[in-house]
Amino acid sequence: MAGLLITFEGPDGAGKTSALTALLPRLQQRARQTIITTREPGGNPISEAIRRIILDPKNTAMDKRTEALLYAAARRQHITEKIRPALAAGKMVLCDRFVDSSLAYQGAGRGIGVAAVGKMNEFATELLTPDLTLYLDVPSAVGLQRIAAHRQTQNDRLDQEALSFHQKVRGEYLALAAADPQRIKTIDATQAPTTVVAACQQVITQTYPTWFNEL
Amino acid sequence: MAGLLITFEGPDGAGKTSALTALLPRLQQRARQTIITTREPGGNPISEAIRRIILDPKNTAMDKRTEALLYAAARRQHITEKIRPALAAGKMVLCDRFVDSSLAYQGAGRGIGVAAVGKMNEFATELLTPDLTLYLDVPSAVGLQRIAAHRQTQNDRLDQEALSFHQKVRGEYLALAAADPQRIKTIDATQAPTTVVAACQQVITQTYPTWFNEL
Repeated sequence: MAGLLITFEGPDGAGKTSALTALLPRLQQRARQTIITTREPGGNPISEAIRRIILDPKNTAMDKRTEALLYAAARRQHITEKIRPALAAGKMVLCDRFVDSSLAYQGAGRGIGVAAVGKMNEFATELLTPDLTLYLDVPSAVGLQRIAAHRQTQNDRLDQEALSFHQKVRGEYLALAAADPQRIKTIDATQAPTTVVAACQQVITQTYPTWFNEL
Repeated sequence: MAGLLITFEGPDGAGKTSALTALLPRLQQRARQTIITTREPGGNPISEAIRRIILDPKNTAMDKRTEALLYAAARRQHITEKIRPALAAGKMVLCDRFVDSSLAYQGAGRGIGVAAVGKMNEFATELLTPDLTLYLDVPSAVGLQRIAAHRQTQNDRLDQEALSFHQKVRGEYLALAAADPQRIKTIDATQAPTTVVAACQQVITQTYPTWFNEL
């Protein structure tokens, strides 16, 4: 059986990362093949080094297209070193953020344009597209409140963004989900965390029933 | 008067950098407006940091598309911080390597494809195109001999390339020059260095006579 690429998307504070952490063992319990989680930069030294440049608070002069190109470069290396080999080995890959994040954050949020960012990312992905995307949706104000509550010690360049930026990001996610409901499934992430995890699990097991043993 | 972007291109060992160094004062002597030279990464901290990742000999796992995206990112930042402001101030910018290098090295040399690399670079340049390009042509074997003679102490990842790679690079440069003779002027760089410099000077002063005081 060929591998599967399932991506998790959403604005900051949607709870993607916690949901993925809770979801993985629940899926693995019933899985017939290997399931892994990953996220950009994906643990490889090249993408990590690129990520450090993007997040360095000193780099205030960074042009928004430079940033988009750096994300695409880190993504490319992550695909090459981790995602492609895992898919080739028949694994299910749960990936925390992928191209949709660049469309929402760089294309819409930063105002570069979704089409231009999408085209440029095709150079990086060579059209590798997720089989399924779970979009965890939260209103921007809720997401930002959660970030403020949880990230009291961290402060990187990307945190210093205004509410209007986050609203543009969410607006693009909603547009992407509306345009491709076959691939992108929206989950209400204002619900209790356990409910969100259960909803994610249900979408995945119902979409790919042959990957899982029955309960 | 608007600024001018003049790029210098050529395979390794063509002598671009020495030619530019000798050319600058000769042009400045007669210039009516400011002339500057620059080269990627262009002295800005972000592009310099990107360049370090590209050249790090440890990064042997770097995918060729990752490399092309990193070059484009460094180029974008160089354009934003240095080239665009200089052009806006009405300066003549002599730039050591630009998009044609990516077409030749990444597109042809690495085999990604010239069209794909060109398209991706349009995201970085937003169609900023040189007004004039001086292509310093040398046969690959000659270029490589010169590198071996001059760079005895240096050794970075990009030096470890075979002759066939350099032949593909030169082949693409020749194809680009043949396809756009209006923009790209070919100079025989097997000639004596002073002859090469004089030829560069002549092309520039004859193409833009109003920029220079008469002798």
